[in-house]
Amino acid sequence: MDGRRAGKTRIRLQAVDNGHATPRIDLVATEEPMEIRLRTGKRMQPVTVTMRTPGADFELAAGLLFAEGIVTQRAQLDRIEYCVECEGSAAQQYNIVTAVTNPGTTTDLFIPGRTFGMTSACGLCGRERIDEIERRGIKSIDSELTISHEIVTSLPERLREAQGLFDSTGGLHAAGLFDANGNLLALREDVGRHNAVDKVIGWAFLEERLPLSDAILMISGRGSFEIVQKAVAAGIPIVCAVSAPSSLAVDLARRFDQTLIGFLRGPRFNIYSSAKRIELAPAERP
Amino acid sequence: MDGRRAGKTRIRLQAVDNGHATPRIDLVATEEPMEIRLRTGKRMQPVTVTMRTPGADFELAAGLLFAEGIVTQRAQLDRIEYCVECEGSAAQQYNIVTAVTNPGTTTDLFIPGRTFGMTSACGLCGRERIDEIERRGIKSIDSELTISHEIVTSLPERLREAQGLFDSTGGLHAAGLFDANGNLLALREDVGRHNAVDKVIGWAFLEERLPLSDAILMISGRGSFEIVQKAVAAGIPIVCAVSAPSSLAVDLARRFDQTLIGFLRGPRFNIYSSAKRIELAPAERP
Repeated sequence: MDGRRAGKTRIRLQAVDNGHATPRIDLVATEEPMEIRLRTGKRMQPVTVTMRTPGADFELAAGLLFAEGIVTQRAQLDRIEYCVECEGSAAQQYNIVTAVTNPGTTTDLFIPGRTFGMTSACGLCGRERIDEIERRGIKSIDSELTISHEIVTSLPERLREAQGLFDSTGGLHAAGLFDANGNLLALREDVGRHNAVDKVIGWAFLEERLPLSDAILMISGRGSFEIVQKAVAAGIPIVCAVSAPSSLAVDLARRFDQTLIGFLRGPRFNIYSSAKRIELAPAERP
Repeated sequence: MDGRRAGKTRIRLQAVDNGHATPRIDLVATEEPMEIRLRTGKRMQPVTVTMRTPGADFELAAGLLFAEGIVTQRAQLDRIEYCVECEGSAAQQYNIVTAVTNPGTTTDLFIPGRTFGMTSACGLCGRERIDEIERRGIKSIDSELTISHEIVTSLPERLREAQGLFDSTGGLHAAGLFDANGNLLALREDVGRHNAVDKVIGWAFLEERLPLSDAILMISGRGSFEIVQKAVAAGIPIVCAVSAPSSLAVDLARRFDQTLIGFLRGPRFNIYSSAKRIELAPAERP
């Protein structure tokens, strides 16, 4: 690589237009592995390695640990730190993040929903995956929040405006938390959409703002089961995606009474669940 | 869910336009968990669970086992089958896929590159992740393939044309293998881009077409480390993505002499590595 800044890497490329190539230097989104470890007293447990865009690493660690049900309360964590004592190069040390629990805290290092390395005897159809989330003690969304359709349709542009990195690399997913008036609470970006969501929810976890009963989560791209699962765990009443949701994301949102919106483009969007939270235009008189 | 077809699920929604809602029934991409197991003699080992769109399940299993280096030769596998003898509902049985190895075969059930559940003492900076791939015995791309810039710019439209599901759900990623003339060899779709790539490479693996020294891989969306890693393992000389690559994807393609193209839109694209395989227009005389 020819140069690196937080979240972006400068590289040389050939820009081709109608068959003619021009050498250029451009920025692409940085992607690096990050290992998350959990330390309880003297016991260190590796949790996972995720490919991520560096930045908001502690929030990513907190958000992932929370989404997986490994920690549920801010008070369980004493601190999160880079592994400066680890062997390895400086680059490696900043790719290892350790969450240190408070004395006397128990954590549930059981990893249900993520993609690799885990298997399960049950939970092998979508319905049972959703049952598992209930068994973790996660409840239906408890929120009286309603927002107008105009706020909904304003969110994609508000997200794009807030995306400092987007314009320069075009390669980053974004997750934004907004209040009921469409004001941005937090925005995080990553090459992985699930990481961007972990980062904003991790921010809220560390700031002791969970559950996010009055917040809207807006994400670039599609709404998968994994994204909705994270938002349900955080108690977010309304999730908006630029593109389509999956079948299981819709099933999950319906089960937990979460409002799921997709295909949010211009004045149009689809409501897949709990439409009660969206204030529509008054019916026109005939 | 209100109804299910292969890869698509029919659901009810409220379509909102300028604040006015209309009830509608639409198709969304189906997402269901799938567990992959490996059986060697009487020994059954769970490998992973991935969230996927049902369809081409055996190809997905084969492609993932190959991408992870668990199997390297078609001859190692006797057959792949649904777990019809497993306990559980019919839906569950079709979400468990077992790859049965041939007698006397050894497999390497070591899972390096995927996101969850695995950790590694080394490999925690991008450069070392790439070194790991070399240590698996994967070589630089060995291919004399060159293609014209017109073929490159024709690929997105060819991919879209071939995407039977795309128009009806809008929620599926696609991976297509093309020959040097732009003819489609195989197309697979999934809610997960990495699954779509595993499916097409799994198809090639089962058809004994690996290495794909004369093929081009065209993917919707972005080019991440994981996607390039799979393509390198399959020996694919040219990878084209509609959107941006990540820094580590570029590093990896350069190390293995793979041609990586991104931002492929209309007459324009960027070449990030091994530009020698793309035939440009003759230089105009002044």
